[in-house]
Amino acid sequence: VTTREAILHAALRVIGEHGIAGLTNRLVAKEAGVSLGSLTYHFASQTDLLREALLSFVAGETERIEQLAESLVGSVHSTQDAAAHVQRALSEMALGREQIGVFEVYVQSARDPELHAATQRCFAAYDSVATTVLSLLGFPSPERAARHVVALIAGSQIRRLATGDADTEHIAAGLLMLLNGAGTVGT
Amino acid sequence: VTTREAILHAALRVIGEHGIAGLTNRLVAKEAGVSLGSLTYHFASQTDLLREALLSFVAGETERIEQLAESLVGSVHSTQDAAAHVQRALSEMALGREQIGVFEVYVQSARDPELHAATQRCFAAYDSVATTVLSLLGFPSPERAARHVVALIAGSQIRRLATGDADTEHIAAGLLMLLNGAGTVGT
Repeated sequence: VTTREAILHAALRVIGEHGIAGLTNRLVAKEAGVSLGSLTYHFASQTDLLREALLSFVAGETERIEQLAESLVGSVHSTQDAAAHVQRALSEMALGREQIGVFEVYVQSARDPELHAATQRCFAAYDSVATTVLSLLGFPSPERAARHVVALIAGSQIRRLATGDADTEHIAAGLLMLLNGAGTVGT
Repeated sequence: VTTREAILHAALRVIGEHGIAGLTNRLVAKEAGVSLGSLTYHFASQTDLLREALLSFVAGETERIEQLAESLVGSVHSTQDAAAHVQRALSEMALGREQIGVFEVYVQSARDPELHAATQRCFAAYDSVATTVLSLLGFPSPERAARHVVALIAGSQIRRLATGDADTEHIAAGLLMLLNGAGTVGT
């Protein structure tokens, strides 16, 4: 892990714990184990830091998702199989401080248009990885369904975060319903 | 509007603008046009205020959704009609400060288990109104689909908020896909 990466992950953890308003250079430097000088050398402004932290998190997550999908090619024989794999992946993915930090940045972006380009790139990256996964798993219309898969998972994750509900079975059931709909609507 | 209601709406607007960390009694009292004494008389703690603001917002929103659905009974003849109505309703619903405030409270709840009961009630209320609407519109398995409709809309709304994307056509397309899937899966 480079210093830059360490700072970005630390920033999300600090945001996840204290909110955007609690994000200070001092806390991030401490959490990342770097000097204040190193932090301000890498990131000139808080908006820079938020933008890069979000993009780096999403790049890492979409890469892991793609690798997982590649490892599953050939072993997925039905929509049910695919939904079960997604459920397992989500239940293993802890909703920790970094994930809370990501949702904080989304909400912050609602008030700070300077962040819109980054959040747009981030959702586009999720659409793209969903398309890749659906296509690897042999779905008939991956591009048309991808954006809705992303919305369904994002909505389910915010509910898990907000309610403390650990159950991920609903997510698999929802994906199954959506993907069944994708297979039959106008294809 | 009662003083209590005015305070609750004002609290969400203040949170939407300044974040939870920026929520002060002084700002809420000013925004609501009430005295500090009146505010502290009605709400003993910040957690009380957050909980009641969330529940009041959701009660108002689910009531409006239900009224809208009742007014549409008889004029909805297909899943496509229903999705178009939902899209119109969402595009008319401004994603303003109160809605941003609601998402802030969701994220705050991820770190404050004292809010879990309120967020659970709030999502249960959305499930329930989705069940009512789907059932009024004649869908075959309203209860099974409701939770996923809620997740899809929540995920789409957080994306609209975060990216500044005004487009709601995707939401209608996603609902159509999901509800088509609900009609064919194991019914």
